[in-house]
Amino acid sequence: MAHIPLDEGASGIRALFAFRPESARPMADLANTLLHAANSLTRGERELIAAYVSSLNDCTFCLDSHAAIASWHFGNDEGFVHSVVTDPVTAVISDKLKALLHIAARVQQSGSLVRPLDVERARQQGASDVEIHDTVLIAAAFCMFNRYVDGLGAGASSDSTGLRERAQLVAEHGYSLSLPQPPTT
Amino acid sequence: MAHIPLDEGASGIRALFAFRPESARPMADLANTLLHAANSLTRGERELIAAYVSSLNDCTFCLDSHAAIASWHFGNDEGFVHSVVTDPVTAVISDKLKALLHIAARVQQSGSLVRPLDVERARQQGASDVEIHDTVLIAAAFCMFNRYVDGLGAGASSDSTGLRERAQLVAEHGYSLSLPQPPTT
Repeated sequence: MAHIPLDEGASGIRALFAFRPESARPMADLANTLLHAANSLTRGERELIAAYVSSLNDCTFCLDSHAAIASWHFGNDEGFVHSVVTDPVTAVISDKLKALLHIAARVQQSGSLVRPLDVERARQQGASDVEIHDTVLIAAAFCMFNRYVDGLGAGASSDSTGLRERAQLVAEHGYSLSLPQPPTT
Repeated sequence: MAHIPLDEGASGIRALFAFRPESARPMADLANTLLHAANSLTRGERELIAAYVSSLNDCTFCLDSHAAIASWHFGNDEGFVHSVVTDPVTAVISDKLKALLHIAARVQQSGSLVRPLDVERARQQGASDVEIHDTVLIAAAFCMFNRYVDGLGAGASSDSTGLRERAQLVAEHGYSLSLPQPPTT
């Protein structure tokens, strides 16, 4: 049950975006920039960081949503995404992505916990400055999105078919889809 | 010492904004929407929420910046701002603002810690649904901004004169000032 009256026609963060379009636009723009725009990290890798941080923050709505999108990017391999989110160290991913997820986990706790050693390890595995920057910001941004959804009690769950359909739409078209759409006449 | 190479001509989040203008724009837009745009909560009250959450996250750069802006809004009363940030319960502020800061403190820990009781208490003190929404989102957003600055080691400190001058500029003109400015020719 949400803490504020939300439109029953939308769920999760989309219901919050409909409640307050003024803040929705920059938040959707930020999600697009971090997760959907061209980047040397693939969309799938960036969605894994988002899903992993959402898992660490126990935000079921964001975890389910971004795990579904990540899964779409990895050939609908839900088992693979689950393995990364639950234990990146043993997952079958590159050492670079492991090092970036390690940084993301530190950011999730506190920015001040990121050590020069963590950054150096990522660089040694081939991470660029922009990739390190974007990893920190994706992790930080999901500390916002997760708190936004749960802090307003808006984390309604979706059925898995709905999740997969929505994931494909967002994976293909980006996060502007989550903004309130003008009425069709 | 920052974890990525930043322009020495800027400090704190402005150096990060200059490093990655693509993500800077939506972040500055979000800060403007939450802290500077017209709202039934005053700009000073919203800056107090930002400073308080930054204090709980131990983010010195954001705390100093937003405490200085809050102070400007309250007639340069730095002692008042310090009293709110260190102990809202005993500070000389409205019961409504106390209830909103209480919600912000819960969001800072985890969104799921916000209870119906906390929201009801804020409502009883006169908080509107939008004010409750905006308080949660300001607190969540500063969980992002704080982690962004500290996670990249970008929290360089400013001298107090520089802080006050900057605070007045932002208080009067908003957060677009923090974006990289086009070169003057």
